[in-house]
Amino acid sequence: MKKIINAPEDFVDEFVEGILLAHPDLVRTPGDDLRVMVRADAPLAGKVGIVTGGGSGHLPLFKGYVGAGLCSGVAIGNVFSSPSSDQILQATKAVDGGAGVLYLYGNYGGDVFNFDLACDLAELEGIPTATVLGRDDVASQPRERKHDRRGVAGILFAYKAAGAAAERGDSLEQVVAVTEDVVEHTATIGIGLAPTIMPTTGKPSFELPDGEMEIGIGIHGEPGSRRGPLETADEIADHLTSALVDDLGLGEGSRVAVLVNGLGATPLEELYVLYRRTHRFLADRGIEIVKKYVGEYATSLEMAGASISLLELDDARLELLEAPARSPFFREG
Amino acid sequence: MKKIINAPEDFVDEFVEGILLAHPDLVRTPGDDLRVMVRADAPLAGKVGIVTGGGSGHLPLFKGYVGAGLCSGVAIGNVFSSPSSDQILQATKAVDGGAGVLYLYGNYGGDVFNFDLACDLAELEGIPTATVLGRDDVASQPRERKHDRRGVAGILFAYKAAGAAAERGDSLEQVVAVTEDVVEHTATIGIGLAPTIMPTTGKPSFELPDGEMEIGIGIHGEPGSRRGPLETADEIADHLTSALVDDLGLGEGSRVAVLVNGLGATPLEELYVLYRRTHRFLADRGIEIVKKYVGEYATSLEMAGASISLLELDDARLELLEAPARSPFFREG
Repeated sequence: MKKIINAPEDFVDEFVEGILLAHPDLVRTPGDDLRVMVRADAPLAGKVGIVTGGGSGHLPLFKGYVGAGLCSGVAIGNVFSSPSSDQILQATKAVDGGAGVLYLYGNYGGDVFNFDLACDLAELEGIPTATVLGRDDVASQPRERKHDRRGVAGILFAYKAAGAAAERGDSLEQVVAVTEDVVEHTATIGIGLAPTIMPTTGKPSFELPDGEMEIGIGIHGEPGSRRGPLETADEIADHLTSALVDDLGLGEGSRVAVLVNGLGATPLEELYVLYRRTHRFLADRGIEIVKKYVGEYATSLEMAGASISLLELDDARLELLEAPARSPFFREG
Repeated sequence: MKKIINAPEDFVDEFVEGILLAHPDLVRTPGDDLRVMVRADAPLAGKVGIVTGGGSGHLPLFKGYVGAGLCSGVAIGNVFSSPSSDQILQATKAVDGGAGVLYLYGNYGGDVFNFDLACDLAELEGIPTATVLGRDDVASQPRERKHDRRGVAGILFAYKAAGAAAERGDSLEQVVAVTEDVVEHTATIGIGLAPTIMPTTGKPSFELPDGEMEIGIGIHGEPGSRRGPLETADEIADHLTSALVDDLGLGEGSRVAVLVNGLGATPLEELYVLYRRTHRFLADRGIEIVKKYVGEYATSLEMAGASISLLELDDARLELLEAPARSPFFREG
C-alpha cells in the first residue's frame, strides 16, 4: 500500500500542521507542541472545558471534534499511541475557564494511564477534573462487563452531549451526568474487510484471507473478536444492528440516533447500502430513527470496513444531540 | 478487494435508497426512478433550477450536492456510466420553477450526449435550458485546448456559485455567466496510488507497480496521463500546485480557494499532509488562501489518491462561495 507521506516519523506532526494551517479560525495550539490543540476561543470563562485525546490515525477522531458545542481541547500521540500526561495537562490548562475540565476519551489502557496522571497534575494546578470513558464496543466485552468495553465511533454522541451541556453552562457535575447517561445508552459494533497499513513499517496490521471478514473490529488496526465468512451488506447490517438492539434492549417505540461509520477505505456508497438495511431493520421493529449520521467519523487509517452505532434517545439526549456544533469536521445546527 | 454490497447489479439502486431513507428532509425522488433525485422543496417558483448528473461511484459527487444553495436535481447512471436523457428530463421537469434550468456537469462524451438530448426534450416541454460543463482537469488537455478538458473535483466550486446565484434570484443568463466565470478560473490535477475495483467485475481498473504513481488521474478509475515514481507528499504537492498556478496564471496578490480532495481510500491525515505543503507553496508566492476544503468531495470508489483544485477568487466569486448551502454532504454558512 502506497501512502502520500514524507518521512514516516513526521507524519503526525505534518498532518496536525495541515489542520492548524487550514482552520486557524476554529483551532489553535496553545504552546509549542503541535499535538496539543484547543478551540480558537478557549478558555471560555465560567464554562466546563472538555479535553479528549488518544492515538493518531483516526481522523476525524480526535482532532476533528474540537470546536464550539464539542470538545474544547485535544492531545494526540503517535499513530495508535496515547498522548503523554504532560500534553493532556497542557490542553487542560489551556481550556480551563474556572468551571473544571471533563476528560472524555475511549477506554484503552495507555490513554487511561496518561489521562489519570494528568488528573493528578491538574489537581496540583488547582483545576478540578472528572472523567467519562467512551466504552461503546459491544464486541469487546459481554454486557455484564460493559464498563470494561473499549471505546469506538459511538463517542461522537458523547462529544455532542458533553459539548452542548458545557456550552449551555452546566456545572462539571452536570456535564458528567449527561455524558455518562449518553455513554450508557450507546452501543457500537464493527466489521473489517482489510487491515490498516502502519505508516512506520508499511506492514498490514493483520492478514485476512479472501472471502473472510473480521467481526467486532476496533479502530486500532487490531483484528476483530472473531472471523467469519464475508457476508452480504444486508446480512452484515442485520447481524450488527440486531446485536445493538439486543444490547440496548430496544423495542417498539424506542427512538434512536444511528451512526454508520466508515473505517477509512470503504466507499460512502457502501455505507449507504448498509444504512438502507439498518433503517429497514429498525423500522420493521417499530424503532424510530430520529437522527442519522453516515460517513467517516472515526477511522483506522485506510482500513476497509464499517461500524454501526446506536444511541437510544430520550428528550434530554435528543436536545443535546441537536444543539449547534462546529469544528473542522463537524458542522450542524 | 472485498466490498460491503449485496448483488453487484443492485449496488446503485441500493445506495440511492439509503440516501433517500437517510435524508428525506433534504431530498426526494420525483417519480418512480430512484436514480432521479431533487431537493425536497423543488421546484422553487421563479428561480433557476440546476440539474447535474453523471455516473455512480463518485460520492459525494453527484447525489451529495443536491440541496439549498447547490444543485436542485440530479440524475445518475450505473457505476461510471451516464444517466439516460429521460432521467435527466425527469429531473429537469421536477426542478423547473419557470425561470429555466441550468445543466451543470463534467465534460465526458456520454454525459454530453445524454444531457444534450435532454435539452431538446426539455425544449419540447417548454423549459428553456442552458449548459455549463465542468472542465477543470489540466492534465487531460493542454491549456490551448482547455475547453476540451474533462471535469473532475473542481466542479464543487461551480455548484456553489451556480447554486448561490440561483438562490438569490439571478436569471438563467446570469447564472450561466457566473458559473462559466468560475469554471474558467478553476483548475485541478490529481494523482493515483491504487486503482478502483469495479463492483460488477471485482477487477482493478488498472495495474500499477510498486513504487509508482499515476499523474493526471481522472475520477473514473482510468489511469493518469503519465506514470512516474512515487514521490513524497511534499514533492507531490509542489508539482501539482505548481501546475495549477501556472495554468491559472496566478501570482503575488492572487486570492484562491483550495480543495484537497481524496479519491476514496486515502486517509484524511494524508490529505492534511498535502494541504500543509500546498498552503506553504502558495503562501511563499504571495498567493492568499481565502477558502479551504480538505476531504472527500469527488471520489472514484476506493481508489487511493488525491487531487488539488484551485479557484482564483475575486469579490464576486468569493461572495458566491461563501453563500449558505446545505445538502446531504455539504454544510456551510
